[in-house]
This record gives sequence, structure tokens and C-alpha cells, in this order.
Amino acid sequence: MAQGNGRSATSRALDLLGAFDIRHPTLTLTELAARCAMPLATAHRLVAELEAWGALERNADNRYQIGTRLWEIGLLSPVPRRLREIALPFMQDLYEKSKENIHFAVRDGHDTLYVAKLTGHRAVPIISREGNRLPMHSTGVGKALLAYASQEFIDTYCARPLVRCTRHTIVEPGRLRRELAATRDRGYALTSEEMTLGSCSVAVPVFDARDQVAASLGLVVHSVRENLAKYVPDLKAEAAKIAKVMVEHRCDPYPGFVHDLPRGG
Amino acid sequence: MAQGNGRSATSRALDLLGAFDIRHPTLTLTELAARCAMPLATAHRLVAELEAWGALERNADNRYQIGTRLWEIGLLSPVPRRLREIALPFMQDLYEKSKENIHFAVRDGHDTLYVAKLTGHRAVPIISREGNRLPMHSTGVGKALLAYASQEFIDTYCARPLVRCTRHTIVEPGRLRRELAATRDRGYALTSEEMTLGSCSVAVPVFDARDQVAASLGLVVHSVRENLAKYVPDLKAEAAKIAKVMVEHRCDPYPGFVHDLPRGG
Repeated sequence: MAQGNGRSATSRALDLLGAFDIRHPTLTLTELAARCAMPLATAHRLVAELEAWGALERNADNRYQIGTRLWEIGLLSPVPRRLREIALPFMQDLYEKSKENIHFAVRDGHDTLYVAKLTGHRAVPIISREGNRLPMHSTGVGKALLAYASQEFIDTYCARPLVRCTRHTIVEPGRLRRELAATRDRGYALTSEEMTLGSCSVAVPVFDARDQVAASLGLVVHSVRENLAKYVPDLKAEAAKIAKVMVEHRCDPYPGFVHDLPRGG
Repeated sequence: MAQGNGRSATSRALDLLGAFDIRHPTLTLTELAARCAMPLATAHRLVAELEAWGALERNADNRYQIGTRLWEIGLLSPVPRRLREIALPFMQDLYEKSKENIHFAVRDGHDTLYVAKLTGHRAVPIISREGNRLPMHSTGVGKALLAYASQEFIDTYCARPLVRCTRHTIVEPGRLRRELAATRDRGYALTSEEMTLGSCSVAVPVFDARDQVAASLGLVVHSVRENLAKYVPDLKAEAAKIAKVMVEHRCDPYPGFVHDLPRGG
């Protein structure tokens, strides 16, 4: 199976799928081959197989994009099939009260993985997307996950470079540790223009049956508005309801539910 | 690349992913091999590659499931990335007015493909799921898509066996044709316990720049309630807004956006 360069055809085909991301949702064959450091002929043959199966599609501009069939199959994974389905009705209740962006997230490796998002026309436009990843130290849902993680995980996280998303992002490890302690003291996380200028957020942890943080629930508003704390009682109430259903459905995120180990750095 | 039996390793690996469906979201290695008519040793080797990349994961019961990474990549396909993002805020407005299940669907082959769904605690529980397929003749969004399809497509659809979902499903081709004509006359589709006992629905077509049906928008309510027509003005208003944004974003579903040809029968 392994070829001259030690990679199998299957892992090379998967690499082609992994070449797409939110900044590169469509790619030409040449771009695909270049991004995967693969000879054009190899890329051509593997892309044809992926296209025949429906994993890739070609659009009207003859560029490749991820196929509808892969979306359908991806929705069978536990995060959308279980966690997302459980959280959405409670998020809907929060949305109706607040008319703001509502997020439900889990930790995957060192990232905040957005499991579900509700938004409307009155909510402030934000960059989060379902299935997208953002840092943990710059987002409300991320800080809620990080503040309640194990001390060992917090130490590892703070020892890594902290990406600066805006001039308000906390990028000093000592300051981040104090911020996480303050988050635990008050019971909820806050951000103020730390991910995106003009937006601030509030988020609470969702605990599993063993009182470990399993997910987080948050809300993003326009930064000129005040008193994010007023949303906390509703967030906590819905987080408790989500936690209850997750326990009933045995949606314990560790192990195997989301990745406890970082993937790809 | 092609092996003794004429199938490449890549297409066999893809077959393993295709073995999962909503009724089989987790499978053992033995079940996977059986569903793909593949020797256990071959399945074992390919599953290991899929797992290493993150396309498959093993859960606490040692059963395989679709991996989070495949969900993330599937979300890059145009249906969720573009259509779903466009439709959701308008669906949110409809949900707030009705508190009922809201659906946005496209035609893919001979199926209704559910692109987006909004639901809450007050809405009646229904079987639709995002990324799921249901027949066109038994669902409101499906009938709205079918009624406005080309005569050629309607002929082909009516010539195929019409699956009976409940005792109320229209399974006689002649009756279905009359129902589709009535749908066009009144400008919206209705179902009454044709997909699920206890539910009825109303849906309207969403037209593209060439006045072809591109999608449909519908609402599912509990069957005891009356006067589904009361929802039509709001549905039509939101459908028109979605159509406008789709045209602005060049979200023309044919060709290459969804499949005009049936896939896998």
C-alpha cells in the first residue's frame, strides 16, 4: 500500500481533503497539488476518485470544493449528531430572550471548537462559524473552557505562544492566569474586544456528571452595550439544562468524544 | 492503484466512510467490513489510516464513528457554507413568529435534502435532520420543490416507485400529479400526516434569478392545528428575501451546487 515516499494512496487522498479550509473553500487542481506537495499526476488521479465518490465536486468555475456527500457524512459524527442536537433548543430559548449571537463550544486540543451557533438579523455580525476553531484565551466560550480545565492543561496552554487577535487580547501568561482565576471566582468568563474589535462576550461552563467542564455556552454582543452580567442567570440556567440532558444521553466528551490531545499542533 | 478486484484503496476507504448512516452512526470493524463486502484485513488496514487522519474515531465502546475532523471539513461544502448561512437568519425570523419547526431544503437527485432546520422546545418533535434526505412526495418542502420542477423531472419522478411513509402518503402517480398541479395553482405545498402521523406542513418555493425553483422553505406543525395557509404570507416574504440574497451571492444551485442527477439511484 505504501508508495515510494512512504505515504499510502488513502492518506494522500485524505491530505487532499485536508487542503481545504475556510480561507480556501475552493481550489484548482494545481493549487491542490501544491498545497499537498504532490505531483500533479498523482493529485489528478486521486481527485478523480474523490470526485467520483462525491467527496469533492467541481463548481461552475472548474474549481474543486468539498462535496455535499462529505457534509452529510460529517453530520453523523458525535459532535453535531449528539451535542449540537441537545444544545440547540436551549440556545433557541436564550436567543429569543437576548436576540444576540449564542454559542455552544467544546475544547478540542488547544482550540475552542464551535459546536453550534444561533444568530439573527439583530445580532452583531461575528466571525464564529459552526465547525470552526478559535483560540481559547481570546473568546468567551474559550475562556470558560480554559478556566475550568485541569491545572496541568492550563499550565501547558499558558506555556504556548498566545496569539494576539486584537490589541485587547491577553497575550501575557501571567495576566491570562489571573484572568482565569478571576473567571473561576465570579463563575463566568468575559471578553472585551479580545477576539474582534467591537464585540464582547460572556460565557459559562457546562459541567459533566463528574463536575468536569464538558462544554461552554456563551453570548456575543456589541461592545458599546453594558452589563454583560445580566445575561449570566439565563446562561447558567440553560447550561444546567444542557448538562442534565448531556448526562442523560451519556454525552461525556472525554474520552473519544472530542480530542483530549492536540491535533496538528 | 487498482487492485485485484478493480477497486483502488482510496475508493475502498471512501466506501468505509459511506457505510455509516443515521441508522448506523457507530459500527464495529466486523460490521464495517461486512457492510463494504471487504476482507477484515483490508478493512482493518484502511480503518487504521482513516482513524490516524481523524476521518474515523473510536468511542468508549470500541465502536467506530465518523470523526469530528470530517464534520469540520464537510462544513466547507457549499450547501452549509453558503446556502445554510444565507437562509438561517430569515428562518430565525419565521421561527420567532411561529415557534414551529422551520425547514430549508434543496433537491438533490430525487431527494429532498434538508439544508437547515430550526426548532425549539415548543415545536412538535419531527424526524427531519440537517443533512438528511426524505422523499419529495411526502414532505412539504419536497412537494414545493417537485411541483415547480421541470415537466420532464416530474414525469421521471412519478414513474418511479413512490415510497409509502404513512397511510396518508400519496403513492398513486396520477393523484400525485393532480396534487402538484394544485400546489402550483395555490402557490404553496401542503402535507397532512404524509411523512409522519401527527404532523402536517406548509412550504413555498424559493426561485433563482431565472425563475427556476432553487430551494424551498417550510414549516411543520402538529396536525390538530388548523389553517396552515395563515403562515403562507410570512413564508413567501422570507422566501423572497432568501432568494434575493442567493442571487446576490450567486448561489445558483445548478449546475455543480447540488446534484441535478440522481446519485446512487
